[in-house]
Amino acid sequence: MRVGVADTTFSRVDMGAIAIDELRKHASVAIERVTVPGIKDLPVACKNLIEQQKCDIVMALGMPGGKEKDRLCAHEASQGLIMCQLMTSTHIIEVFVHEDETNDESELAWLSEQRTREHAVNAIKLILHPKELIKEAGTGQRQGFSDAGPARR
Amino acid sequence: MRVGVADTTFSRVDMGAIAIDELRKHASVAIERVTVPGIKDLPVACKNLIEQQKCDIVMALGMPGGKEKDRLCAHEASQGLIMCQLMTSTHIIEVFVHEDETNDESELAWLSEQRTREHAVNAIKLILHPKELIKEAGTGQRQGFSDAGPARR
Amino acid sequence: MRVGVADTTFSRVDMGAIAIDELRKHASVAIERVTVPGIKDLPVACKNLIEQQKCDIVMALGMPGGKEKDRLCAHEASQGLIMCQLMTSTHIIEVFVHEDETNDESELAWLSEQRTREHAVNAIKLILHPKELIKEAGTGQRQGFSDAGPARR
Amino acid sequence: MRVGVADTTFSRVDMGAIAIDELRKHASVAIERVTVPGIKDLPVACKNLIEQQKCDIVMALGMPGGKEKDRLCAHEASQGLIMCQLMTSTHIIEVFVHEDETNDESELAWLSEQRTREHAVNAIKLILHPKELIKEAGTGQRQGFSDAGPARR
Amino acid sequence: MRVGVADTTFSRVDMGAIAIDELRKHASVAIERVTVPGIKDLPVACKNLIEQQKCDIVMALGMPGGKEKDRLCAHEASQGLIMCQLMTSTHIIEVFVHEDETNDESELAWLSEQRTREHAVNAIKLILHPKELIKEAGTGQRQGFSDAGPARR
Repeated sequence: MRVGVADTTFSRVDMGAIAIDELRKHASVAIERVTVPGIKDLPVACKNLIEQQKCDIVMALGMPGGKEKDRLCAHEASQGLIMCQLMTSTHIIEVFVHEDETNDESELAWLSEQRTREHAVNAIKLILHPKELIKEAGTGQRQGFSDAGPARR
Repeated sequence: MRVGVADTTFSRVDMGAIAIDELRKHASVAIERVTVPGIKDLPVACKNLIEQQKCDIVMALGMPGGKEKDRLCAHEASQGLIMCQLMTSTHIIEVFVHEDETNDESELAWLSEQRTREHAVNAIKLILHPKELIKEAGTGQRQGFSDAGPARR
Repeated sequence: MRVGVADTTFSRVDMGAIAIDELRKHASVAIERVTVPGIKDLPVACKNLIEQQKCDIVMALGMPGGKEKDRLCAHEASQGLIMCQLMTSTHIIEVFVHEDETNDESELAWLSEQRTREHAVNAIKLILHPKELIKEAGTGQRQGFSDAGPARR
Repeated sequence: MRVGVADTTFSRVDMGAIAIDELRKHASVAIERVTVPGIKDLPVACKNLIEQQKCDIVMALGMPGGKEKDRLCAHEASQGLIMCQLMTSTHIIEVFVHEDETNDESELAWLSEQRTREHAVNAIKLILHPKELIKEAGTGQRQGFSDAGPARR
Repeated sequence: MRVGVADTTFSRVDMGAIAIDELRKHASVAIERVTVPGIKDLPVACKNLIEQQKCDIVMALGMPGGKEKDRLCAHEASQGLIMCQLMTSTHIIEVFVHEDETNDESELAWLSEQRTREHAVNAIKLILHPKELIKEAGTGQRQGFSDAGPARR
């Protein structure tokens, strides 16, 4: 199995290094990494990781800014990542941390690491242990902040 | 006939299990289930159910959160599901329950179950009894809350 | 010539039946009808009418609700219908009547019928009499409510 | 060379006739014209002009209304026109005049004519004199209202 | 290696000339330039640079205006550029400078030049020195205004 990791120079946290660290803890998979300037460069970078580097899954890591224009960039990047998945029939786990989700730089760094690590585990489950995800269906999982949990009747 | 069921670990209700329970009540169809982390992972999961698992129709089940960012996620997922249908010429019944559609967790659980069950019936009609849908054309059907009914002149 | 008619069970007016009635008044064309649950199911239904049922043009009939979420659904459906047309090189006449365009159910029923009938005529012109449309270019045609007419200098 | 002209019956100005008049002043090109009901019908009309009528470039002419719903229609049409260009590797010059850009019908008629004529010249340059456009790079050209001009340092 | 440069006559700064000047400082690459009227014409122009002119990467340079309609144009252009990258598996570096990012024409000219030059360096790194980008991962790089830098814990 081969996992692609794509991240950005725009991000204020080295999310790619964190993802690779976590992936290695859970499985002995080959890892291919690329870094691009910003989140709108991620879709084609992921496509190349899938088609040219033969990755079975890719993690797309980015940190959109907090302004209205940044939200639109993130929207465009997300649409591109979904289209890329449909064109390649391959999962891309989008891990975006919006700067305005946190109150200060320290929490931003913490959230980026936590969300990246939890989604690295999801990536491994998707390619190696898909039945474990079925067991978690409907349990209100969240990545980074605490889980919402199942709705009580 | 083979029906795909794709749901998420993000959802706070096990919509996949409900869908399968309802599908089995109405037809003896083969069922393939996958669970992914969130709604933006659904489009490619559905594509694989159609192309690799040879499903004739898929139910895509998800529960978007109540914030503005969540609404945008749901929008991106919906666009991806429509594109997936066009690429595969196969129906995907989107069953999304927005957390802010209900007042509390109990109503959320009820709505999720009700909407999922009613759309499971729609899925069966689409592949096995399409003429029954023509009879219901223009009758203001709703899934979950009560029907709007036909407009009175 | 073969005309496809796709409508929904969500609509509160039987727009499909109205379209078929009007189409038959203007030309002896074969008609294929399908009904789907909602407007987001229309794009792939139209694709199948074009590719499997060999329709030369399709009318896509729907009635989006009046809430913000409904407007977004209509936007997604419209994008899908345009993409479907590009993939098949075939016209799809979108006939959407938004519940909030009218003041009461009676006007809603009237507008749905009127707009459907006028667009049925447009569909016939597109496949059989395209030069008639050139004569109407820039004349401010509207479907349902009264025409805007040409701008006076 | 062959130029396609696609316009609408919804428009309140005969933009197609104006485009053809201006194109003929600048080059002896073959011209193919189609008229469709509204701007959302333009993308597939342009695709057919390119693929079936072998046009080397197309002008897509439309006049979106001034309401919020109309703006969304224009957005969907624009997305479709861009996708059509990518699918055919052929330029489509979008000439949209929004009703709310002007104060009265007379100005609307003037703006529609002026913008259409200036973009007809752009279309000719794109297919016959691309180097003339390079000379104008960064000069703040506008079509219709007066040019913005280059930014002064 | 061959670098494409696509810019617009709408822009108020000759961004294409600036890009070419900077590219030549960093590598001896072949350069192909085209100029189109506006940013919505960029996606297909980039596609032709990639497919017909065999460019290995393209810089897409534009200056959206400051009104709401202009923001929507930029959004559509960005979506088209991402789709073009996915269709060609080739990077396109989008360099957009929004008129409302700056306070006056002089700052607009400065920002356009600075952002274009910094992204020209990114383009060279992407095709010739991709490992240098990995070193910059998560360091909060910005193009034009000063860098945000890494988040402090």
